[in-house]
Amino acid sequence: MSLLVVGSLALDTIETPFGKAERALGGSATYISVAASYFIQPVRLVGVVGGDFPKEDIEFLKEKEIDIEGLQVKEDEKTFFWHGKYNFDLNSRESITTDLNVFADFDPVIPGQFRKSTYLCLGNINPELQLKVLKQVEKPRLVVADTMNFWIEGKHEALMEVMKKIDVFIINDSEAREISGEANLIKAAKKIQEMGPKILIIKKGEHGALLFCENDLFAAPAYPLESIYDPTGAGDTFAGGFIGCLAKTEDLSYENMKRAVIYGSTVASFTVESFSLDRIKDLTAFEIKDRFNEFKQLSVFTSA
Amino acid sequence: MSLLVVGSLALDTIETPFGKAERALGGSATYISVAASYFIQPVRLVGVVGGDFPKEDIEFLKEKEIDIEGLQVKEDEKTFFWHGKYNFDLNSRESITTDLNVFADFDPVIPGQFRKSTYLCLGNINPELQLKVLKQVEKPRLVVADTMNFWIEGKHEALMEVMKKIDVFIINDSEAREISGEANLIKAAKKIQEMGPKILIIKKGEHGALLFCENDLFAAPAYPLESIYDPTGAGDTFAGGFIGCLAKTEDLSYENMKRAVIYGSTVASFTVESFSLDRIKDLTAFEIKDRFNEFKQLSVFTSA
Repeated sequence: MSLLVVGSLALDTIETPFGKAERALGGSATYISVAASYFIQPVRLVGVVGGDFPKEDIEFLKEKEIDIEGLQVKEDEKTFFWHGKYNFDLNSRESITTDLNVFADFDPVIPGQFRKSTYLCLGNINPELQLKVLKQVEKPRLVVADTMNFWIEGKHEALMEVMKKIDVFIINDSEAREISGEANLIKAAKKIQEMGPKILIIKKGEHGALLFCENDLFAAPAYPLESIYDPTGAGDTFAGGFIGCLAKTEDLSYENMKRAVIYGSTVASFTVESFSLDRIKDLTAFEIKDRFNEFKQLSVFTSA
Repeated sequence: MSLLVVGSLALDTIETPFGKAERALGGSATYISVAASYFIQPVRLVGVVGGDFPKEDIEFLKEKEIDIEGLQVKEDEKTFFWHGKYNFDLNSRESITTDLNVFADFDPVIPGQFRKSTYLCLGNINPELQLKVLKQVEKPRLVVADTMNFWIEGKHEALMEVMKKIDVFIINDSEAREISGEANLIKAAKKIQEMGPKILIIKKGEHGALLFCENDLFAAPAYPLESIYDPTGAGDTFAGGFIGCLAKTEDLSYENMKRAVIYGSTVASFTVESFSLDRIKDLTAFEIKDRFNEFKQLSVFTSA
């Protein structure tokens, strides 16, 4: 098995009620790859950075056995930069600065040996770019894609095309409501599944996640965290843990999809415990398994 | 075992995007008693109505084996009336009219043989009245209480007194945040448990419910409903199913508390399928057990 991840690499300045991180490592592809690296190695990464991208961040990705052959480095340009500020309850945020920089004219080129990857994760980028990636790969066994409200509004047609070509769509509850035009999430999910993806995951932050798999529904709880320092990357690491688990086990059964959702939730729960990728830089297999088991205790009950 | 329920009986006019019900049977004690009647009979009811309270509603309560000896009927006065209008996504509502009527000077009197009830459910009423009830009962094995934002703001001191005297406190997420002053629900729960109740249930509507039992946490999923016609009474029937299950089984272990939360969720999920008590007037044991089992399928997953 082999896993290809395409998305953004970024430098993020993040403000939360608990502090501030400046020009810290971020980006959808970064978070996804690092999360997936705990399940499968190497993870194949395709993205673009500028000359200002720290050498130690490149080294860190390599340490995580992330294959950066597909990483374009444009020495004379600047890396994608985002400055966001979260409100007091961390449920909403304001984008203070979004400098696309090198990302403005990103043209994803999938290296030859990456094109036969059996698992593909399309991080949150312009759906037109996601379509370009889909044209270059050769029948992956499973394609997972993420998006965001910005593309739902601005690139609707391309996003609808993407949805027809993917297997698993991962979005949050407000995005699900926006795409479907339905307030009720169960109705929303049915409508979205009719748009293409047989499998839909709706992330609900502190309320967990819902996995819609054809006609089945699995409700995953959220890990109870008293302190969430930085929600950035939670959704991406969820996707990375999810597809990483599937690629490792090569089992696409509903039962295993459920486990993959819990592994995704597990990695995401670590992500938000600190700024940037700080908490998930050096997770151990024991930490991950231990928290997976804690998830189980959260929702188990027996009849009579 | 014996279960005493004290709360309001009301006539509700309810508007939702799906229709309108006029002067329909409502009130916290009504919903709680009917829900609990599927687990234990008779349920002992204490409340007050006016001369306009329909005779057929009295008959209905009797049919459900609800003991109305403690129901005060003030022939020359009017029953508590509420007119509410829900917004399009049913997550918020506006109170158009609240006529306390007979409820304005309600003085709960617990009949002699009701005072030794082993289980007590205090529906959402003025906490000063909840305290009056607590003074009249003789060491119930378990006391469950509900409240609402109106009392959190208006009768803070009395509510704090109630919280010291009860075992299980059932509130929704916004109420939990308001009482504790904490945005994070896990932090909020710890603070509320320190105020008195060892067991706290936070209802989250479409996101399920959280049971905090001393240091344990159980996350119950919500039943996936595509159409919610009327959320009125969902919280009350949750409480009724919860305490009804506990009173029936007489098992206050954490394992059984979890089952009781699922039974509460089960009855609540029926309640919202139609206006007023229409859907829960004639539930069968089979329907309840069947949906309980569906809840199980929603959240179960296995390791490796």
